[in-house]
Amino acid sequence: MDSLEELEKTGAKADERAMDRFSPAPVIIENLTPCIDGGAFAVKVITGELLRIEADIFKDGHDVLKADVLYRRRGSQRWSRSPMKFLSNDRWQGSFRVDEAGFFEYSIEAWTDALSSWMRFIEKKCEVQTEVKTDAEEGIRLLNQWLQTVTDKREKKKINSYLKQLELAAGSSEEILRMIRDSEFIEVITENPYKKDISMLKAPYPLVVDRVLAEFGAWYELFPRSQGKHKTKSGTFKDCIKRLPDIKKMGFDIIYLPPVHPIGRTNRKGKNNTLHAGPSDPGSPWAIGGAEGGHKAVHPELGTLDDFRDFVEAAGDYQIEIALDLAYQCSPDHPYAKEHPEWFYQLPDGTIRYAENPPKKYQDIYPINFWCENREALWNELKSVVLFWIEQGVRIFRVDNPHTKPLRFWAWLIEEIKTQYPDTLFLAEAFTRPKVMKFLAKAGFSQSYTYFTWRNSKHELREYLEELTQHEMKYYFRGNFFTNTPDILHEYLQKGGPTAFKIRLALAATLSSSYGVYSGYEFFENIPLKEGSEEYLNSEKYEIRKRDWNALPNMKSLISRINQIRKDNPALTGYKNLEFFESPNHQVLCYGKANSDLSNIIICAVMLDPYSAQEDLVRLPIWKWGIEPWQTYQMKDLVTGQKFYWKGESNYIRLDSSQPAHILKLTK
Amino acid sequence: MDSLEELEKTGAKADERAMDRFSPAPVIIENLTPCIDGGAFAVKVITGELLRIEADIFKDGHDVLKADVLYRRRGSQRWSRSPMKFLSNDRWQGSFRVDEAGFFEYSIEAWTDALSSWMRFIEKKCEVQTEVKTDAEEGIRLLNQWLQTVTDKREKKKINSYLKQLELAAGSSEEILRMIRDSEFIEVITENPYKKDISMLKAPYPLVVDRVLAEFGAWYELFPRSQGKHKTKSGTFKDCIKRLPDIKKMGFDIIYLPPVHPIGRTNRKGKNNTLHAGPSDPGSPWAIGGAEGGHKAVHPELGTLDDFRDFVEAAGDYQIEIALDLAYQCSPDHPYAKEHPEWFYQLPDGTIRYAENPPKKYQDIYPINFWCENREALWNELKSVVLFWIEQGVRIFRVDNPHTKPLRFWAWLIEEIKTQYPDTLFLAEAFTRPKVMKFLAKAGFSQSYTYFTWRNSKHELREYLEELTQHEMKYYFRGNFFTNTPDILHEYLQKGGPTAFKIRLALAATLSSSYGVYSGYEFFENIPLKEGSEEYLNSEKYEIRKRDWNALPNMKSLISRINQIRKDNPALTGYKNLEFFESPNHQVLCYGKANSDLSNIIICAVMLDPYSAQEDLVRLPIWKWGIEPWQTYQMKDLVTGQKFYWKGESNYIRLDSSQPAHILKLTK
Repeated sequence: MDSLEELEKTGAKADERAMDRFSPAPVIIENLTPCIDGGAFAVKVITGELLRIEADIFKDGHDVLKADVLYRRRGSQRWSRSPMKFLSNDRWQGSFRVDEAGFFEYSIEAWTDALSSWMRFIEKKCEVQTEVKTDAEEGIRLLNQWLQTVTDKREKKKINSYLKQLELAAGSSEEILRMIRDSEFIEVITENPYKKDISMLKAPYPLVVDRVLAEFGAWYELFPRSQGKHKTKSGTFKDCIKRLPDIKKMGFDIIYLPPVHPIGRTNRKGKNNTLHAGPSDPGSPWAIGGAEGGHKAVHPELGTLDDFRDFVEAAGDYQIEIALDLAYQCSPDHPYAKEHPEWFYQLPDGTIRYAENPPKKYQDIYPINFWCENREALWNELKSVVLFWIEQGVRIFRVDNPHTKPLRFWAWLIEEIKTQYPDTLFLAEAFTRPKVMKFLAKAGFSQSYTYFTWRNSKHELREYLEELTQHEMKYYFRGNFFTNTPDILHEYLQKGGPTAFKIRLALAATLSSSYGVYSGYEFFENIPLKEGSEEYLNSEKYEIRKRDWNALPNMKSLISRINQIRKDNPALTGYKNLEFFESPNHQVLCYGKANSDLSNIIICAVMLDPYSAQEDLVRLPIWKWGIEPWQTYQMKDLVTGQKFYWKGESNYIRLDSSQPAHILKLTK
Repeated sequence: MDSLEELEKTGAKADERAMDRFSPAPVIIENLTPCIDGGAFAVKVITGELLRIEADIFKDGHDVLKADVLYRRRGSQRWSRSPMKFLSNDRWQGSFRVDEAGFFEYSIEAWTDALSSWMRFIEKKCEVQTEVKTDAEEGIRLLNQWLQTVTDKREKKKINSYLKQLELAAGSSEEILRMIRDSEFIEVITENPYKKDISMLKAPYPLVVDRVLAEFGAWYELFPRSQGKHKTKSGTFKDCIKRLPDIKKMGFDIIYLPPVHPIGRTNRKGKNNTLHAGPSDPGSPWAIGGAEGGHKAVHPELGTLDDFRDFVEAAGDYQIEIALDLAYQCSPDHPYAKEHPEWFYQLPDGTIRYAENPPKKYQDIYPINFWCENREALWNELKSVVLFWIEQGVRIFRVDNPHTKPLRFWAWLIEEIKTQYPDTLFLAEAFTRPKVMKFLAKAGFSQSYTYFTWRNSKHELREYLEELTQHEMKYYFRGNFFTNTPDILHEYLQKGGPTAFKIRLALAATLSSSYGVYSGYEFFENIPLKEGSEEYLNSEKYEIRKRDWNALPNMKSLISRINQIRKDNPALTGYKNLEFFESPNHQVLCYGKANSDLSNIIICAVMLDPYSAQEDLVRLPIWKWGIEPWQTYQMKDLVTGQKFYWKGESNYIRLDSSQPAHILKLTK
């Protein structure tokens, strides 16, 4: 906290100094990629991911340049290095991988390779002259300078022998060429180069390394209170444990729970968000806090904190992680409201103002005043909430409406938590203006909800996905594609029937590497509160819903199948490797993903019109994958197991309600 | 010099501090344009030019935001301000002009407009409620807080009266609405807003303001020694004075002179760059320095320093400025070679190495070792050369081969000179790799030579011009289009005859606002040294050339006409206002420029094939200029005076060798 305050004071001064006057290094390194806003924000990768770094590197004149990518854990003194290679037009590229989660940084070092420069010069000269005494003497001078920088004895010995050779050559082109073309000589000057004009990027660039689940995972959202057997009685964490085999069978990696805390009674909302709750209405889990406790308590009807920990542990046995909701707001009954009224918006009469966006009123919720006088205590308390749940075994937080809280708060909180627990992940539940969504990601969120739900046409999907995965955003913003949420039942699902559900599942699960469904999706639940609304009728937000988890019809086996395909095919674990393919039919979306060595190539074709069968001609860039135009290749549908044999770039497909999506594995 | 050294030591530390940890301000300001490499380099404008600044500005929640563009002379403590307006999608725009040359800086300040936010909220609420007591009290609190920040007595009085009104309103929607909708109230809170969350860009962004000649001017290059009447005797500065009326009549603004210093005798080059000079060969002016002096002396055969000053003064009387060549290299006879051998590359035997790029050798030139031990003295001496000529009245320097000298040196030199003499201009004679050319401009050069000479097809010209004038480069790189130079006689001119010369003149003078010709161009001089060479036969670089300045055929009157058109039409003074128009014929280039209020619209159509007549249909975006599809508009050819009447978007044109270019003025 103190350091934040300090930064405010010194930040501007330090910046002014840095930009005060321009002083280029001998070797210019510029136009770095990736680089988010000049290095103000971190690039994100997952452990083991190859990060490619590029920059323009040049200087005046004709010297031979070399460059390394440098990287290290933040705070470390020692850089790791990886050599860069020249591409063209002064552009260089290098790459590295990091295998542990945490805060890292990278930079570039470039230098003049003095001996290679001399070699290239004398090589050219020897071609036109038989005697190059002066240039040989220049070489002797360089070798002597180099010798002084070398500490290794064996190395020193070698250099001394070259010095002798060069002296003995006495300026003879022939002798000198023989020496400098010798592979051992080249190896020696390459292995331990004599660096001049060593230049570095002015400051290191930040990098966040997350564990794989930050980029690849299937989410399942459920309300614990709906997991029991009784229609009106709250389900418990114990009931949740019983649900694990079914959820595991569907192939989900993460179960996300709406708030599990005590729910306020004052102004509690009734069924379907009505203003007055009946005595048996459980209220919205987002109206957090009651007599039983606040953000660090569990709702007594769900069980005890021990029960919660048991659930987390049981899920762990199934390789499923539990994600908690982090909703920083309070019901009027929250202990904070009594103990710290100064953390809220107090009205002149001493009462606390509830949330309001005229004409809408949220009488059951008090928003927090993040910029209150007592900000330091408040922020630290909010941080302690996260730490509390981390202690209970939670490492994933789905943050409710982060865009209505200060952007600065999130930057601070996420930095604080991840410094201590680098494996923690934060998913931003932000549906707001594009720039704010991007900024939340820059400020540190590991993932974000997206506009995917509202992108249903071929053009929209392609444009949006390319923005997310093919341009600068891919370096810091990871889109998590939810097919539905308790707040969003899109008209497409309301009206398109089971086929629409299958289409959106296939799209979510293959377009993005992170996706999720809110429970009920598997049963094609599609009744809205009213025409034109995206809210569910009888929403679980305000009541307990009992479901028969084996009811028919359902799409559980399709979900299982698709989640299994995602796990079996390395191409589908990638987020940034998406590529769209041309096809004439506007009701069919064609795209694919391949892993880096092209050993796994997945092609998807999904119909977008849920009402009628579609035919299309998919045009694939087979030349990229080493397939000749006359060559037959196998396309295996991974859902049905059916095999097709294709030839050339353009091939026919047909999709209908029985199979609205092809997920095809290409084999040469 | 010391400050450079200091920066090297402290620079890295300061930067590290700045990027140490991210701390967003309450209001986020990002994605600033223009912004060169995160503010590392200055944006360039000319005096009086409107600079548009844009940024994304947003914060969490629903508050009303406001923003100002700030700007000031570097070193000043006081900002000038100009309000920004909201465009869309969180994007804001503001603008300002500066009327004096010099180093400036700009920034953005944004804030929450607390009273407008309250007004908007209460306005919405009053629509659905008749009693808004608590919200009115919130307003009273805000007005009271505001009152404490206001010092103006009249202002205070007004606020007090609003406070009273609000208290008397006693929460009545009707009363409150009446007050906040009152135009005087709105004026008061707009004029002197109550700012909260004041946020600024982290550091100011640098801006260089140059005088107009930095962007708009016609250059004429001549060798003073060729301006005399005798074929073998050197012309003088006095002869140059006699040439002024002719050059003025052609309409040139700047006369650029190759080096005017004493020329070395050792290894002097003969005619056509032969290795051995005859006794009467004058040598290359770029082999600078002899017994008579170095970079601060004039060649005795050209006259005295007084003669030079007289020439500068006489040119001034014709509103013509003299640009000098700044070639930092020495002949073996240069005083520096004797007095400061340590400033060169000394060989082990104590001699100095001449310039060499095997197999090429430049025995008449010693390159300077900019990174020598005695660097500080050397750099300061080189700076004193510029200051010396500034004292003689020169303010424009055409820098020879800057890309072969350290980029860092230029950044330092130009900064040093322009701090003292902000009206100094530096033209980079760089023909090298694209990134190096761009970097020289970033490092401070006011203008640069370009690849224009080698862009002759429609596609090449359009692509290159759009890169220069329509993207980021336009903010820092000003291309000066020379039709020819003593080093570059393009094949297009060698083979295309007079028509080719007219075409390239028209293109240079209308595509860029800065352009130049090397004398002889007006007489269609087109004989190369040999087939495949871009060098002139009997190049003036190695011998004195006498010309009859009234010889026929010539294109002096066309040059006069075009330079006059440039001056008469404000659209053509612009560099960044270029726009290309579609037309089907690949041998015709169509483009235009308009000034900002559209009172001057110039359309050009130039044929590119110098050998045969061309017809084309030019398609103009007349809707941009408020012309209806059925409306007839006049197109006056400014070269011939001919008038055409056009209608609609597409109109016919015909070009041939008698008139290879239309420069048309559009009048509604």
